[in-house]
Amino acid sequence: MKEIRIGLIGAGYIGRSHAIAYAQAPTVFPLKGKLIREMIAGITPELAQVHAKELGFLRSTGDWRELVADPNIDVVDICTPNFLHKEMALEAIKHGKHIYCEKPLALNSQDAKEMMVAATNAGVKTLVGFNYMKNPTAKLAKEIISKGEIGEVVHFYGTHNEDYMADPLSPIHWHCFKDRAGLGALGDLAAHIINMAQYLVADIMTVCGDLETVVKARPEKSGSPVLVPVENEDQAHAIVRFDTGAMGVIETSRIACGRKMGLSYIVTGTKGTLSFTQERMAELKLYRHDEPANRQGFKTILLGPEHPDYAPFCNGAGHGIGFNDQKTVEVRDLIDGIAQDQAIWPDFTEGWKVSRILDAIVRSHDQKRWVNVSEIN
Amino acid sequence: MKEIRIGLIGAGYIGRSHAIAYAQAPTVFPLKGKLIREMIAGITPELAQVHAKELGFLRSTGDWRELVADPNIDVVDICTPNFLHKEMALEAIKHGKHIYCEKPLALNSQDAKEMMVAATNAGVKTLVGFNYMKNPTAKLAKEIISKGEIGEVVHFYGTHNEDYMADPLSPIHWHCFKDRAGLGALGDLAAHIINMAQYLVADIMTVCGDLETVVKARPEKSGSPVLVPVENEDQAHAIVRFDTGAMGVIETSRIACGRKMGLSYIVTGTKGTLSFTQERMAELKLYRHDEPANRQGFKTILLGPEHPDYAPFCNGAGHGIGFNDQKTVEVRDLIDGIAQDQAIWPDFTEGWKVSRILDAIVRSHDQKRWVNVSEIN
Amino acid sequence: MKEIRIGLIGAGYIGRSHAIAYAQAPTVFPLKGKLIREMIAGITPELAQVHAKELGFLRSTGDWRELVADPNIDVVDICTPNFLHKEMALEAIKHGKHIYCEKPLALNSQDAKEMMVAATNAGVKTLVGFNYMKNPTAKLAKEIISKGEIGEVVHFYGTHNEDYMADPLSPIHWHCFKDRAGLGALGDLAAHIINMAQYLVADIMTVCGDLETVVKARPEKSGSPVLVPVENEDQAHAIVRFDTGAMGVIETSRIACGRKMGLSYIVTGTKGTLSFTQERMAELKLYRHDEPANRQGFKTILLGPEHPDYAPFCNGAGHGIGFNDQKTVEVRDLIDGIAQDQAIWPDFTEGWKVSRILDAIVRSHDQKRWVNVSEIN
Amino acid sequence: MKEIRIGLIGAGYIGRSHAIAYAQAPTVFPLKGKLIREMIAGITPELAQVHAKELGFLRSTGDWRELVADPNIDVVDICTPNFLHKEMALEAIKHGKHIYCEKPLALNSQDAKEMMVAATNAGVKTLVGFNYMKNPTAKLAKEIISKGEIGEVVHFYGTHNEDYMADPLSPIHWHCFKDRAGLGALGDLAAHIINMAQYLVADIMTVCGDLETVVKARPEKSGSPVLVPVENEDQAHAIVRFDTGAMGVIETSRIACGRKMGLSYIVTGTKGTLSFTQERMAELKLYRHDEPANRQGFKTILLGPEHPDYAPFCNGAGHGIGFNDQKTVEVRDLIDGIAQDQAIWPDFTEGWKVSRILDAIVRSHDQKRWVNVSEIN
Repeated sequence: MKEIRIGLIGAGYIGRSHAIAYAQAPTVFPLKGKLIREMIAGITPELAQVHAKELGFLRSTGDWRELVADPNIDVVDICTPNFLHKEMALEAIKHGKHIYCEKPLALNSQDAKEMMVAATNAGVKTLVGFNYMKNPTAKLAKEIISKGEIGEVVHFYGTHNEDYMADPLSPIHWHCFKDRAGLGALGDLAAHIINMAQYLVADIMTVCGDLETVVKARPEKSGSPVLVPVENEDQAHAIVRFDTGAMGVIETSRIACGRKMGLSYIVTGTKGTLSFTQERMAELKLYRHDEPANRQGFKTILLGPEHPDYAPFCNGAGHGIGFNDQKTVEVRDLIDGIAQDQAIWPDFTEGWKVSRILDAIVRSHDQKRWVNVSEIN
Repeated sequence: MKEIRIGLIGAGYIGRSHAIAYAQAPTVFPLKGKLIREMIAGITPELAQVHAKELGFLRSTGDWRELVADPNIDVVDICTPNFLHKEMALEAIKHGKHIYCEKPLALNSQDAKEMMVAATNAGVKTLVGFNYMKNPTAKLAKEIISKGEIGEVVHFYGTHNEDYMADPLSPIHWHCFKDRAGLGALGDLAAHIINMAQYLVADIMTVCGDLETVVKARPEKSGSPVLVPVENEDQAHAIVRFDTGAMGVIETSRIACGRKMGLSYIVTGTKGTLSFTQERMAELKLYRHDEPANRQGFKTILLGPEHPDYAPFCNGAGHGIGFNDQKTVEVRDLIDGIAQDQAIWPDFTEGWKVSRILDAIVRSHDQKRWVNVSEIN
Repeated sequence: MKEIRIGLIGAGYIGRSHAIAYAQAPTVFPLKGKLIREMIAGITPELAQVHAKELGFLRSTGDWRELVADPNIDVVDICTPNFLHKEMALEAIKHGKHIYCEKPLALNSQDAKEMMVAATNAGVKTLVGFNYMKNPTAKLAKEIISKGEIGEVVHFYGTHNEDYMADPLSPIHWHCFKDRAGLGALGDLAAHIINMAQYLVADIMTVCGDLETVVKARPEKSGSPVLVPVENEDQAHAIVRFDTGAMGVIETSRIACGRKMGLSYIVTGTKGTLSFTQERMAELKLYRHDEPANRQGFKTILLGPEHPDYAPFCNGAGHGIGFNDQKTVEVRDLIDGIAQDQAIWPDFTEGWKVSRILDAIVRSHDQKRWVNVSEIN
Repeated sequence: MKEIRIGLIGAGYIGRSHAIAYAQAPTVFPLKGKLIREMIAGITPELAQVHAKELGFLRSTGDWRELVADPNIDVVDICTPNFLHKEMALEAIKHGKHIYCEKPLALNSQDAKEMMVAATNAGVKTLVGFNYMKNPTAKLAKEIISKGEIGEVVHFYGTHNEDYMADPLSPIHWHCFKDRAGLGALGDLAAHIINMAQYLVADIMTVCGDLETVVKARPEKSGSPVLVPVENEDQAHAIVRFDTGAMGVIETSRIACGRKMGLSYIVTGTKGTLSFTQERMAELKLYRHDEPANRQGFKTILLGPEHPDYAPFCNGAGHGIGFNDQKTVEVRDLIDGIAQDQAIWPDFTEGWKVSRILDAIVRSHDQKRWVNVSEIN
């Protein structure tokens, strides 16, 4: 079986999750390639070494350029802050590496496009870590929609709301700066629900959005009286139209008190409705209008082995899957796609599409008008 | 105690609910006036007589003009299709009657304004049957917001979705025609959630909306092959800004499969969040961000005698109230307002404000742009 | 139409609810008799007069014996503390009155039996105010079970838990004394869920129970340092067997922190399951095992006009009903039963059966053994 | 770091879960020992080899005796059908191995006791795979109870209901035979909730139970007309008393239609209540009675990094954990306990205690009386 050697850049929050997924994926799934946790690149050689040991990687380096140039690396996995994605990806592509990159793909759609074009030209595989559509419930939702069980989709309501910056005294960090994060809640969170919308419904064609930075400045550090301006939006929303004509609403916030993992969607069709929230990630609610009027209602389906991608985790229905499990499905798709030389999705093209939509929402807000996504580069 | 004699025009769906509220209000509440179910006007004298008997009214007539002119009527209660509201209200005002009118107040904001002006000039009391903000949970939500328990409101998400026309074979009726209903889902349903938004947050100042008639034509009657065009929207949504700067989303649909009484709201503040759905009308969910991080969560508050307007119905917490009970609170406000010559709310001014917002959403859609509500007459 | 004149004894908590039901029943339902709120008896003539005025009754008296002897009373409605039920009912029966009595029917099953026998011999109609099985959801549950939609019932789990005495500093009151209340949580609360169990499943034949007075003594009055012993149980539970062989669990508590109206049941059958809690009184959850494995789940059915006894309240599905509405259904059954000389249920026979089961649970606890309900008189 | 080499016997349903936990544990947690997946024993050498490869074990054997005797094995992990636990464990103990054994520990409490005594005498570590109390929510519940946040526990209601044998045509398997499974639902499922009850409340001292085999016989194989008698119970329940005097109810079923992972508990205290169901494994509901009456309610706490054992999986609150994650916590406890020579829990002593309670329930049913757990050997 072909060896697929992973080089991970950045072992913070989401990097850890990748590492856990790498650890369990070969046991959960009959992967088509032999996954090897080869190397971690960190800010310093010392930190990288610590992380490599903790997370089960063979080697480490304090220089990501060394990692992307290493001939024994097949996949470069980019888990660094947003502003570093482009440079790292382009460099890795130059070395012919496949890329697994966290979202948002880049600081803006132009950068994302450049990355997409480079990857396409180089013929490398790409995967963007949107992960929520790797949750088996999303695949179940997609199956229900594709089979026509809720008829034609006429409305989509989707959110990705969290409250990690709800406290105005929570200190500034890189997510708040344009040069490091690009967008705020839109980039960090809405990217997910937009990807989900495109997965479940269709491409988004036009948008009209609004955004706001509610907390204008934040302490330099915890407890500091020095306030630093926040440069991007805390919350945003948009009304949209899909390619199919379906109407949609997208909401996002990083200050939505009480929402810890508020990625949610309601997909309304002509014959039924699906409702989901990631806070109950193993449940999907399904309503069918063709049932007798006195027996209609939303049915709560718990994930089980009859659903896509669940059985490898557990043969018991309702036993539940977790965040890292959906990341594990993502890793399976990465490894199998590379091993079998097949398309992987969501790739850089989808990453760019999502970026365009995000930029369209911002332009729409700036210019107070509806924007065609195709206006954006 | 002053007698307050009700003349009810129209004893269909919502008229029945008014009648039930009239029946129980004097027993539930210590009303400030003596409520008398005086007269019903119906389409024919015979039907009116039947309804008067059924619903406990003393007299009946087949001619609403007789009712509004009757010297023994103090309040004219208008429960007829939308297109009749204006003529009836103006005529009743001419006779110095107080008016209790169902929503939407009129076919459009111009008509609503005319009604508001006439009522103001005549010095009669008015009340529009928005009823959902009479639900004790709404008063509890208002109290929580007013006391600052969730900080300053930064976002409002509100829906009024139902599925009563989800079936495309469900036949055409007056709600589908512009000359009889005015708007579609916006007028019939969104009027409620817009009123609620204004009650809980602030006046809505600007809107950008979108709408669609999903089912373009419907059978003339049940089973008929003859299709009649539907003239107004099945679904609509808008992004809005409140007077306070808070952002909002309003959604409405009459084809939202599975939503039977989908008036819902999520009010996000800087310190907490409220979440409600009318399908669980006696529950309010409250989240406070100032609780310790390991004990945070949405708390489900069940209505009880400690909450506003609940104890008169029942002294046991969690015992539950129903749709007609909130209508009974509305009737209490009507009778007490008239008996004590005090302001009643939501009055025709609010009815007009809601109409303006609805018209602004439509104009926004037609012109594909943000509209200031003040642009509308 | 035959006049049916009500004489209400006791206008406290539950008496008010009866009065509200009397007020709205004739408007909600096409009653078969003409309901007249004739007379209230209270502790003093003055209080009775106040209550009569508040609750819309024509006359009042400070002497219940006057009420039960009054030739213009058809139904004596007993809403007094438990220890008064028997004397009042027997006296009323002596005068040939129909009886509408609150639960528990009596202090013990012997008294209940005496009342049942007297009523039967006199040929008067009786109705015990178990009310929760008048909730349309209960009728829907019954219909689903009767039609075999969940197969044969194999297990019943039922609770009636509340927390009205959870605070150990909440002062003593008549519910805590054997001579005034009889049992504690069993009599006040479990009576309801036992009646429901018998309604939905079958007669309970054998029981094995346990009980406990958690708060042994309570303040004489609010804030008083003087503690008075509590004479009956705060919580109890029992395992039971129904006539059909089905197994059951009954739980009750008046100190179940957080349960405000915790009457709930889960009825498990060989083909499906029903789940309900009165805190969401207009919802019934239904699971059918014969659905495809990948589409199985509990479906939340919201009450609507297609369900029994809902449409008279409202023609819109999901609009919700309240506590007094189920009491209104009860009043409808009372009036129609009398007017049409038909059986009413749950009558004194059912009241006695419930009392026997309660007494059997107590004996089971006292003697630490299974008890056949038939052992109890 | 000390190497701890695992020998896994049985790689079916639950064995796979162990393997996944072994795979991810070293990445998730900073384990105190070096976990090595050394050997798998299967029914045949071929099958064992396949499983070893799939699940990342170094070696394999078709003879479990070889595994338990292997000097390079430190821990014998027994994931075989119940009837094999005792022989395997005793043999492994003889070779001085630590034992990680699935529940129920043995076919009956006598066997369990023998295993406990052997392990104690040999001084080996033991761990029984009750796993649900390794779910971080259970640790959170325990913390809340221990800190007195809900006062003293007065009532426990616990279930472990599933529906994996609800279909009467689902064929017979080893779980249905006394010589292979011992008990039915009690052994397979109730063992979990009894362990949880003991973890959260106290030791169970007396029980009175009832049980039933609803489906008396099942097809020999799928579709076969030959029916084979089922030898143990499909459902059971018991009322119990804890060491503290608290009352409890235990329910279990393998035919509870609709319950896919119905391990649930409600712990009622004098000051508050906890409510949990494993179907929403990352949520705990907490009610505190000392909050103001108009703000009381059950609060839904989503697991987050502030809670025990969650952060190693994910730094984002509400992101969710799955079934294998709780198994991973269990493996962490195993490895750390051995590496640091510290007590592990739940050990064979707890496994025996649970077995005694199960046997007491059966004896109680057989003899139709309350049974002291201490009566059982």
